[in-house]
Parts: sequence; C-alpha cells; structure tokens
Amino acid sequence: MSASALLFLATSDFILHDKDASKRPFTEIGTKEAIRLKTAGLSEKIAICQDILYAQRQHKLLIILQGMDTSGKDGTVKAVFGQLNPAGVRSVSFKAPTAVELAHDFLWRIHQQVPAAGEVVIFNRSHYEDVLITKVHAWIDDAECARRYAHINAFERLLSDTGTTILKFFLHISKEEQKLRLEERIADPNKHWKFDPQDLNERKFWSQYQQAYQNTLRATHTDYAPWHIIPANSKTQRNLAIAQIVTEKLAGMGLAYPPENPELYKLKFE
Amino acid sequence: MSASALLFLATSDFILHDKDASKRPFTEIGTKEAIRLKTAGLSEKIAICQDILYAQRQHKLLIILQGMDTSGKDGTVKAVFGQLNPAGVRSVSFKAPTAVELAHDFLWRIHQQVPAAGEVVIFNRSHYEDVLITKVHAWIDDAECARRYAHINAFERLLSDTGTTILKFFLHISKEEQKLRLEERIADPNKHWKFDPQDLNERKFWSQYQQAYQNTLRATHTDYAPWHIIPANSKTQRNLAIAQIVTEKLAGMGLAYPPENPELYKLKFE
Repeated sequence: MSASALLFLATSDFILHDKDASKRPFTEIGTKEAIRLKTAGLSEKIAICQDILYAQRQHKLLIILQGMDTSGKDGTVKAVFGQLNPAGVRSVSFKAPTAVELAHDFLWRIHQQVPAAGEVVIFNRSHYEDVLITKVHAWIDDAECARRYAHINAFERLLSDTGTTILKFFLHISKEEQKLRLEERIADPNKHWKFDPQDLNERKFWSQYQQAYQNTLRATHTDYAPWHIIPANSKTQRNLAIAQIVTEKLAGMGLAYPPENPELYKLKFE
Repeated sequence: MSASALLFLATSDFILHDKDASKRPFTEIGTKEAIRLKTAGLSEKIAICQDILYAQRQHKLLIILQGMDTSGKDGTVKAVFGQLNPAGVRSVSFKAPTAVELAHDFLWRIHQQVPAAGEVVIFNRSHYEDVLITKVHAWIDDAECARRYAHINAFERLLSDTGTTILKFFLHISKEEQKLRLEERIADPNKHWKFDPQDLNERKFWSQYQQAYQNTLRATHTDYAPWHIIPANSKTQRNLAIAQIVTEKLAGMGLAYPPENPELYKLKFE
C-alpha cells in the first residue's frame, strides 16, 4: 500500500478520539496556495488515468465519502474529481430512502449505482448511513447492526472480487469545526440552501455519531475495501490527502490503453 | 433567442446539403488557441451557472448530442462540460438497446435518464437513434417513423412543460472529414479502442443517413426543443458554438441561489 494511504489507514482497533481532525500532514509543502496547486496537479493526473480506465473498460473504481454534516463531501467531489470527463464519472448522492427503497433491503438501491467496467463512481454518503444514523437513533439494535456490518463486508467483497477497486474515506472534523462551518453557512445567504435545520438535531448526537463511526470503521475496514481517516478541519489538507491516495491507487492499477488492433491498418475508406 | 442560437438553428424546411460543415463562424476571434481560450472561459461560466442550478433545484437542463461517428460527441462533452462539478452533471451514452430495453417502448430507457430538478444531463446519442439507424436500414417503415416523430415531440413537450430546458445539437461533419478522422484513429494505437469496424459499415450509408437526419431534424425541431446544426469539421469552432449557445441559454434562465432564510440567523450552536 502507498505511503499516503498508510498514513491515514484505519485499523481494527483505532480510537477515533485519538485521531486529530486538525492534523496538517502537508505543511512542509508550504502555503495554502502551494497545497492547492499540488492538489490541482493530482486532480489532472486523476483525469488522465480516468480516460485510460474508461478506454480499457476493465477496472471499476468506487469512492465512498462519509462524514458528519459540513465535513466537506461536496467540496471533495469538486476539488478532487471536478476535472474528470463527465462521460466516465458519476457522483451519486444518497438521501433518506424513498418508500420504494425502504421496501427493499438496504443494499438494493446501492447495488444499482455501483460502477460498471470503465467507470469511476463517487458515493456522497452511502450504505454506511444504514449503520450510522439508524444506530444513533436506535432504529436498529446491536444484533441488527452487526448483521448489517457482515452484509456490507460481503457486498463489498462481491464488488471487489468482480473487479471493483474500493476506496473509503471518512472526513474527520471536530465538533468545533462543524460549528464554525455552520455559522459560515448562515453568514452567507447563498449557502442557506445547503442548510437543513435538521442538521442541528443530528449535531446534538455528536458523541454518539463518533462512537457509531468508530464501531463502523473498525468492523468494515478490510484489505479489499479499506477505510481512510482523513483529518478534514483543513479543506486544502483534506483535498490533497484524498487526491494523493486516489492517484497512488490508480498508478498501481496497471492502467493501459487497450492494445492496438493490427487489422485496422489494412482498412481502406472510400 | 440568442444571437448564437439563431446562427445555427434548424428550420422546418432546411436542406442539410446546403449547410457547410466546414463553416468557421468564429474566425474573427483569431487563432485556434484564442478560440480554445474563449471556449474554456465559457465552460467556466457554464460550471458557475450549473452550481446555481444545482442549488436552486428548479430547472432541469437536457443536452442532446447527435451526429455521425467521429463527429465529436465525446470531445464536446469533455471540452464544453468537462469543468462541471460531477455532483450536478450526468453524461449518458446510449448504445444498442439490450434485450430488456427492446422489450419496452423506445422511450422507456430514455425517460429513466432525464434530468431531475437541479441536474444537467448530456445525452451522447439518444432516442433519435430510433429514427435514424432504424430508418436507414429499413427496420421501421415510413409510417412507423412518422409515429415515432410524433411520440418524440410529445415526449419532449412533456419534459419541457415540466421544467426541462432542452438543447439539441447535430454535429455536422462532411464525409471527407470523417475519413480523415477514421484514419487518424487508426494511426494512433491509443485510439484503436474507439474504433468499431462496424463504423465502416454505417459509413457506406452516408447519404441515407444525411437524408434521415434532414427528415428527423425537420420533423422534431420545435420551439420547446430546438435543433442546432453545428458545423463540426473544425473541433475548436464546434466547441465554441456549443459553449456559446449553452451559456446564452443559461444566462436567460433566471438562475439565482435560493432566497436566504431569515430564521437561520436566530440559530445558536453549543
């Protein structure tokens, strides 16, 4: 596994509370602007790799973004994947399930959205909500939660076994940082649309969410679908961390344009 | 309607043969590089508008790209829409229908992919294939073709009446230009994957396709879903033409961030 990936990797016994959301692993690079430029460069590299991945139609890449409200899931999509050709990338935002979705198992709507060969898909929230908000509010009990962890691991193994590379990112912010970001949204009328008063409700369960995340990440961190815990109080550091992990993963996938077809050289057109 | 849009607009009696695929409407701007820069600037504007469209969740934008093989549909997606946030744009490529799709009416799979409120969707090929390739090879007769034109117009009216802005682009290239581009693909082994020997088959029906396109564009050019005939022998000119029409359309849509919510200012966080 790559250096960057190792830096942020979850382990089966990690303590979320010990992970510093304000950590700045890339300060040696210099100013904010320098970090931003480096991220933009990696983002271009990702776009080039995606072009090959699309041409090759062999690999599938699934990026899962999870984190508390305001942790920067939307911002990550824009900063890290904003330069990808729309033809080969899909961003899927999972909201509260509809009546039809609720009438099926919790992985039903997820399965429909996984990447096809040649595709990059980004999940902005995911099936992990079904062991987070549900657990925090005790809509499911411990036994059901454990069953769901097992279902998730089996599901992700299926995807992995059939050619999907899975990268899971937990965007780790502090409660204080969320406060600042919520206040920022309120200060900017153009951001009011992003503000759901419901957000404040969930904020009251902060420590329960941290516990649920810790349990979930521990239980679903596998070698075929690892969790990365990204210090996300700094947006620039967050973007660079994710861009690096994605770039390094793509670099190791053996991407190549499909081989030439010698038959084509013989073709003549009128 | 905007100046650029008018420039390329189809009419109910246009003659495709009279439209010059090599027309260079933007030569006054200067060099290729100058045109490319102008397109990149508009592409950024489109990205900004899309951000507001996404926030507003009111408008839906559907872009339909049609054209002969190598006419530049993929290239357009990348050059004009490549800077959009993946969260708010979807590019849908319609291939030969599957068995399940064929077991339904021809608009069934299309309807599933139309934009939701706040979304920009690009169709790379579309339901128009069902009155083009099908007609050229006489898989459908004139009567069925006429019925399909009517179905398409009614379908697009439904979308338009329910908040979808529809822009349809026919990327017009000459047979000679296609020859050059096919030869280009063959010369570059990294582009062989794009080459389907089937393409050559369809090329044999060039004039039938031109006729089918003319009939189709005439029959389905409506004020709520107009066709633009884009001279596409020059890639830079093509991209700028499309970028201008899209930008001007977005500018006239009255896009605005949702109004502020005064209640939010009263919120306090612990």
